[in-house]
Amino acid sequence: MILRDPVHGLISFDSPVERIVVDLLDCREVQRLRRIKALGLASLAFPGAEHSRFAHAVGSAHVMKRYLERVRKLSTDLPAEDRIDRRAAMAALAAALLHDVGHGPLSHTFETVLPGAPPHETWTSRIILDPATDVHRVLTKVDPELPQEVERLVHGKHRIPHLARAVSGTFDVDRCDYLVRDSYMTGVRYGLLDIEWLLASLRLHRPQGTGASVLAVDGNKGLTAVEGFFLARLYMYRQVYLHKAVRGAEIVVRALFHRLVELGPQPGTPTAMATLLRGEPLDVPGYLRLDDRTLDAAIDAYTESSDPLLRELALRIRDRQLFKTMQLRADADPVAAQQRLDQVLRDEGIAPAYLGVIDRNEIRAYDEDHTLGVVGTSHGQYRSLLAASPVLRGLSRERFVHIRAVFPPQVRRAVGRGLAAFS
Amino acid sequence: MILRDPVHGLISFDSPVERIVVDLLDCREVQRLRRIKALGLASLAFPGAEHSRFAHAVGSAHVMKRYLERVRKLSTDLPAEDRIDRRAAMAALAAALLHDVGHGPLSHTFETVLPGAPPHETWTSRIILDPATDVHRVLTKVDPELPQEVERLVHGKHRIPHLARAVSGTFDVDRCDYLVRDSYMTGVRYGLLDIEWLLASLRLHRPQGTGASVLAVDGNKGLTAVEGFFLARLYMYRQVYLHKAVRGAEIVVRALFHRLVELGPQPGTPTAMATLLRGEPLDVPGYLRLDDRTLDAAIDAYTESSDPLLRELALRIRDRQLFKTMQLRADADPVAAQQRLDQVLRDEGIAPAYLGVIDRNEIRAYDEDHTLGVVGTSHGQYRSLLAASPVLRGLSRERFVHIRAVFPPQVRRAVGRGLAAFS
Amino acid sequence: MILRDPVHGLISFDSPVERIVVDLLDCREVQRLRRIKALGLASLAFPGAEHSRFAHAVGSAHVMKRYLERVRKLSTDLPAEDRIDRRAAMAALAAALLHDVGHGPLSHTFETVLPGAPPHETWTSRIILDPATDVHRVLTKVDPELPQEVERLVHGKHRIPHLARAVSGTFDVDRCDYLVRDSYMTGVRYGLLDIEWLLASLRLHRPQGTGASVLAVDGNKGLTAVEGFFLARLYMYRQVYLHKAVRGAEIVVRALFHRLVELGPQPGTPTAMATLLRGEPLDVPGYLRLDDRTLDAAIDAYTESSDPLLRELALRIRDRQLFKTMQLRADADPVAAQQRLDQVLRDEGIAPAYLGVIDRNEIRAYDEDHTLGVVGTSHGQYRSLLAASPVLRGLSRERFVHIRAVFPPQVRRAVGRGLAAFS
Amino acid sequence: MILRDPVHGLISFDSPVERIVVDLLDCREVQRLRRIKALGLASLAFPGAEHSRFAHAVGSAHVMKRYLERVRKLSTDLPAEDRIDRRAAMAALAAALLHDVGHGPLSHTFETVLPGAPPHETWTSRIILDPATDVHRVLTKVDPELPQEVERLVHGKHRIPHLARAVSGTFDVDRCDYLVRDSYMTGVRYGLLDIEWLLASLRLHRPQGTGASVLAVDGNKGLTAVEGFFLARLYMYRQVYLHKAVRGAEIVVRALFHRLVELGPQPGTPTAMATLLRGEPLDVPGYLRLDDRTLDAAIDAYTESSDPLLRELALRIRDRQLFKTMQLRADADPVAAQQRLDQVLRDEGIAPAYLGVIDRNEIRAYDEDHTLGVVGTSHGQYRSLLAASPVLRGLSRERFVHIRAVFPPQVRRAVGRGLAAFS
Repeated sequence: MILRDPVHGLISFDSPVERIVVDLLDCREVQRLRRIKALGLASLAFPGAEHSRFAHAVGSAHVMKRYLERVRKLSTDLPAEDRIDRRAAMAALAAALLHDVGHGPLSHTFETVLPGAPPHETWTSRIILDPATDVHRVLTKVDPELPQEVERLVHGKHRIPHLARAVSGTFDVDRCDYLVRDSYMTGVRYGLLDIEWLLASLRLHRPQGTGASVLAVDGNKGLTAVEGFFLARLYMYRQVYLHKAVRGAEIVVRALFHRLVELGPQPGTPTAMATLLRGEPLDVPGYLRLDDRTLDAAIDAYTESSDPLLRELALRIRDRQLFKTMQLRADADPVAAQQRLDQVLRDEGIAPAYLGVIDRNEIRAYDEDHTLGVVGTSHGQYRSLLAASPVLRGLSRERFVHIRAVFPPQVRRAVGRGLAAFS
Repeated sequence: MILRDPVHGLISFDSPVERIVVDLLDCREVQRLRRIKALGLASLAFPGAEHSRFAHAVGSAHVMKRYLERVRKLSTDLPAEDRIDRRAAMAALAAALLHDVGHGPLSHTFETVLPGAPPHETWTSRIILDPATDVHRVLTKVDPELPQEVERLVHGKHRIPHLARAVSGTFDVDRCDYLVRDSYMTGVRYGLLDIEWLLASLRLHRPQGTGASVLAVDGNKGLTAVEGFFLARLYMYRQVYLHKAVRGAEIVVRALFHRLVELGPQPGTPTAMATLLRGEPLDVPGYLRLDDRTLDAAIDAYTESSDPLLRELALRIRDRQLFKTMQLRADADPVAAQQRLDQVLRDEGIAPAYLGVIDRNEIRAYDEDHTLGVVGTSHGQYRSLLAASPVLRGLSRERFVHIRAVFPPQVRRAVGRGLAAFS
Repeated sequence: MILRDPVHGLISFDSPVERIVVDLLDCREVQRLRRIKALGLASLAFPGAEHSRFAHAVGSAHVMKRYLERVRKLSTDLPAEDRIDRRAAMAALAAALLHDVGHGPLSHTFETVLPGAPPHETWTSRIILDPATDVHRVLTKVDPELPQEVERLVHGKHRIPHLARAVSGTFDVDRCDYLVRDSYMTGVRYGLLDIEWLLASLRLHRPQGTGASVLAVDGNKGLTAVEGFFLARLYMYRQVYLHKAVRGAEIVVRALFHRLVELGPQPGTPTAMATLLRGEPLDVPGYLRLDDRTLDAAIDAYTESSDPLLRELALRIRDRQLFKTMQLRADADPVAAQQRLDQVLRDEGIAPAYLGVIDRNEIRAYDEDHTLGVVGTSHGQYRSLLAASPVLRGLSRERFVHIRAVFPPQVRRAVGRGLAAFS
Repeated sequence: MILRDPVHGLISFDSPVERIVVDLLDCREVQRLRRIKALGLASLAFPGAEHSRFAHAVGSAHVMKRYLERVRKLSTDLPAEDRIDRRAAMAALAAALLHDVGHGPLSHTFETVLPGAPPHETWTSRIILDPATDVHRVLTKVDPELPQEVERLVHGKHRIPHLARAVSGTFDVDRCDYLVRDSYMTGVRYGLLDIEWLLASLRLHRPQGTGASVLAVDGNKGLTAVEGFFLARLYMYRQVYLHKAVRGAEIVVRALFHRLVELGPQPGTPTAMATLLRGEPLDVPGYLRLDDRTLDAAIDAYTESSDPLLRELALRIRDRQLFKTMQLRADADPVAAQQRLDQVLRDEGIAPAYLGVIDRNEIRAYDEDHTLGVVGTSHGQYRSLLAASPVLRGLSRERFVHIRAVFPPQVRRAVGRGLAAFS
């Protein structure tokens, strides 16, 4: 199998081990990812960013393939227990492809808006472990124990620690793909990692007296590349993921779900969502019916709802009439600001209160990760990233806080006046 | 207004004339284009190609902006009647943005499958001219005659012929944007026009004894660029638009609609589509309710239809179990091949006949276009593109035919044997 | 060894077989290629195009490495005599790196201006075969027969025909590198081959009844890529290699050498060049002293020559006061035009006659090459490129002729009048 | 005038004001920059990096053109004294083009190796102010005062402070071009600034109570871009400018000049260099004879010197047999390390002492610059970059020190042992 990818160029899976990717791609649960946008609401601010989780899943499997090739090259120096055998390689490729298989509509938004609904990680586990799914069948055909191994790997657990971290860690194939892909598709250039260089500078370091190797980069050329990775992440948050229009849309969607919880299922609500709204348990086949398109269809139906608030919020999303934002000082007190915003909305006669939100996000540019380090060139000694990198040291000491008031457009002036002290 | 575009970099519309684009972008009919994929089914073969008609519309308006800037630079040499005044510039920007506003779901597929349904060009006209639409209101606010001017311009008619051709011609802003955008998003590199160079080499040539200037390129540097444009188009057809998986998906969708016409509206069929299926007239608001997502929702509903054929076809689309293709010789007789294919399907017990299709597409690499030429550098003499370009001459003498049998996977071997004589 | 290349990204030679490239890179004769510009005078028209033959040699070796990897993947299907063993792989890498090692200053210009001087191919052979050179020593250390094998391979001869053609053929690693590199460095986008796709679509085809496989591309996806290769070549000729300023510079250099032959060695003429000017035989060490910089130093010295013509020509090159060009009709008779140009120069009092040149270049877009074909997908049948490709068929029927008068600036008007009938 | 630039795409200078660039490009002193490599010895480590100061000068003028266009767009809000009139625009374009016109061979190396030789800035001034140069003549033709204005501008002095800073400041057109160009040509991706976005986010801020506007960027979108600029600079230092092979070559060149100073002019030393070596004053025409190629010719001559040390050093440069490096701890004491290295060389019988060098470089990632700030979006308030940017704050607190021992290859082991305590 060979296919064109705008980000990685040619992607092929043709060795016997890689065959598992081809088989998984044909599964209904993986095809469903075509119907879920990777960046959710961000295409409202970045018209190019319509790409799907499916393309990201394929890209992640491709980066994993490259990682496995790299480790194979290093493996003459590896202790036996850190070498990746055929079975572990298949598990790693499958886990990279399936790591997002449980995502619901609008990616991360969905799980935060339905109180009590299981997070996407739980759904990913269920889908992999449920004997009735296509992906389970494909994995089981290789080995009856493979679904369990893949499921654990998706959550960062494996007997080979560096492989577990490559699937789910500070610096993993998932992030490597999405930073570049989101950057390419939004046109925001800051996420353009040099994946070739990252792979070429990768090492596996075995600390003395311990059993397992950890990921490391070559201190000479790899340090810059790995710093670039964390900077890319910081910048994509700032420029894309926390873009004011994206947050303005997010708050509208949350308000819509808030209203829906108040009202209960409405005409046009898909069965599976109704189940979740009622707080009832949902089975895997039901969950898999939910995707961006079923949610869109529901929102489309709500544009004709008899409830004026639900109708207004649905129209706002469909026709991109988003909430406005006002940036506050990084050190503003979010609780006090929320109280002030509530007061402004009350004074202006806007209800319910959840239409005005203080939206605070803090990005950790780099948290010390003891499973990722730097191997020096002169003597091969291992140091932590923080010890080796003044750039990461500098970044780790600063806080990156984005705090905004988000509210309906008609109260723009009142909010501007009312929250002046926080800005 | 400034936004990031992965293809053109920064796009801004900030002059008073360009303000019309900003106002039109807020219209519901333009926002609807976010819900229609530019390449329809092609994302089934090219996972990156999920981009929307909205992004393409914005890009087309941007290329038109650049075209207007270029003509302004040339305009000291232009006769008064070829210069673009403020009003014509607004019409041109609006026409570039709105040229696709009447597209239905799955872009070109939709209009070919419903017998008697108006083509998207008709819907574009109706939407622009209907006093109840947002875009009509925005245009009318500028000038009551503007909707008519924009509608005519979309169809290539205007008092300034070169402007009409720039909106809708052999070599227009629509194609300039989509070739590059589709190329960028599929990862197929052949559509990468050098738009900067094309614009820099653009001339307006006034033939002696006639009243109006025609588009031309500088013979020295522009000829290569304009040849590159036609080559890019040829290659994108070959590599993307006529890709076997894309055609395999297209034939499945057509068969589904064929079945739907036989059955009449089914549970899950959206109201507007039901109207069309019944052959009844549809109004503009009804048509605007149709988009990729309503169609997807319908297909999703059909996956549970009681009609086995409709259900099978719906599942094929949703889960990407497409029809297979077999390439035939370029000079194969399509009628004889179809008869043979029908026979094979009958022999294999596959019915109805429309499940097996001989799909023949011929691309005209370049047809002589007398409104586009080349201005020589030595004496400024004007020549037709065919006279000036050996490359286009060579291409125009050849025929580019793609002919394939398309059929359900289970008859693959039987078709291989049965149509061997045509391959 | 790992290095950054702007064109190919990371280049590494680290397997035991590839070690030969690392050793050859350290040779004086290869290091000398740093001092010879790949595009000679073209940087006078394209300021970015200062890249050296050294970078191109490294790039060619890299493409050969990729070719060998591709053939290894195909090799399960290959007859034993077409498989590339360790020794042949080393020869191929060495030949790709060394194919240009005999180039003189200004690349192709030099050998055309000195009557009787051996062409660069001869020098390449001598350098490889001369026991006193570093490269000979490196090759001999591997195997005493290796220099002979590499030398024959550079000239397209080897027991494995497809390997010989990959080093020196219609479609070889040399062209693959230089088209992309020259494109990247000039900023002219037409040479941007999709090397990944070309390699992925490569096949080796064994015609029935013959002993050796020939290069082929997959008919489905490879045809477009290989057409793109020949189009890229055509366009780079048109846009870069035959650019009017490049030809204007070339004619000045030729005139300078013409003058030098008339005058004999002058103050500042390097010893080796003096030897060549006197028509005496030059040895390898002497030849290797010649590079762009020794030629530049000579030209610099000539700017103070007592001979007015030599001085003028040297100043023209150093300070970029090039000859002018006038484009003539493609079908103009070059002999008659030269006579006319000579007359104009005589009338204007300009002598000698070689200051005015009719410069005619004809590019063959594609000549049928029976060692390169297309393998169809349906039945695996092999066809010639011309049979399979309407684009190449169209191109091969057309002639691409560039004909210009080149002359000193002061006679611009007189030439314009005098040669009007040819334009 | 229109030309292709690999970095900026099309570059054109066609308005009457821009005409000055076209005229300056024809000057001998500007053409000389074709013969000076922008990155000096770096092409020894990065084979692609052969680009000239000429291409950089053109690129800088292009960025200045874009800057002037941007300021013109902003200028409705500007006080009269900050607006750029025709004359100032011409001066700015000329200064951007000429800012490096005084560079000697090997760019920065040259001026550091000849004791008492004037720095390149002095030569730039002399060339612009000398009535006998072409550039002086071109400037004077526009206005007799223009040479003085341009010369002051090159050194960052002008009545319009923001214009002075755009020519020569923390964040100027010079750096904007070279970071991108060096990045493009080396293949090191870290210098890829988003110049479009930088320009779009540029503001001019007028502090209350002062007379002149300062450069600022929009706090929302510009902050990321300007941080990216300083990060790009830091990374290019680390990856390219201070690359170990580049420093290893630099130290060889310095040693060669050291030897030359000891020996006095040798056979092959160009006249102008001999003058400098003898400590005698050199005139402008003499200096202009020096470029990379005259230096290369001299080094070539020295490869046959009767002085063994000079010969060895010359061969090392020509054939790329560079000195080796050993990385020391960032906090190593350079004086103590030098003493230790001297001792090692003495013990190994290597003399003179300048063949072993402790090479310490400290990069300031960002120094507070009060002429560059950030304008907030909410209230338009101005803040310093350090106040606005946690990233720059983090970077400014860290020290980026590269310290290495550089020495002849034959003492590698002895140095490794001898300086172990410093590493």
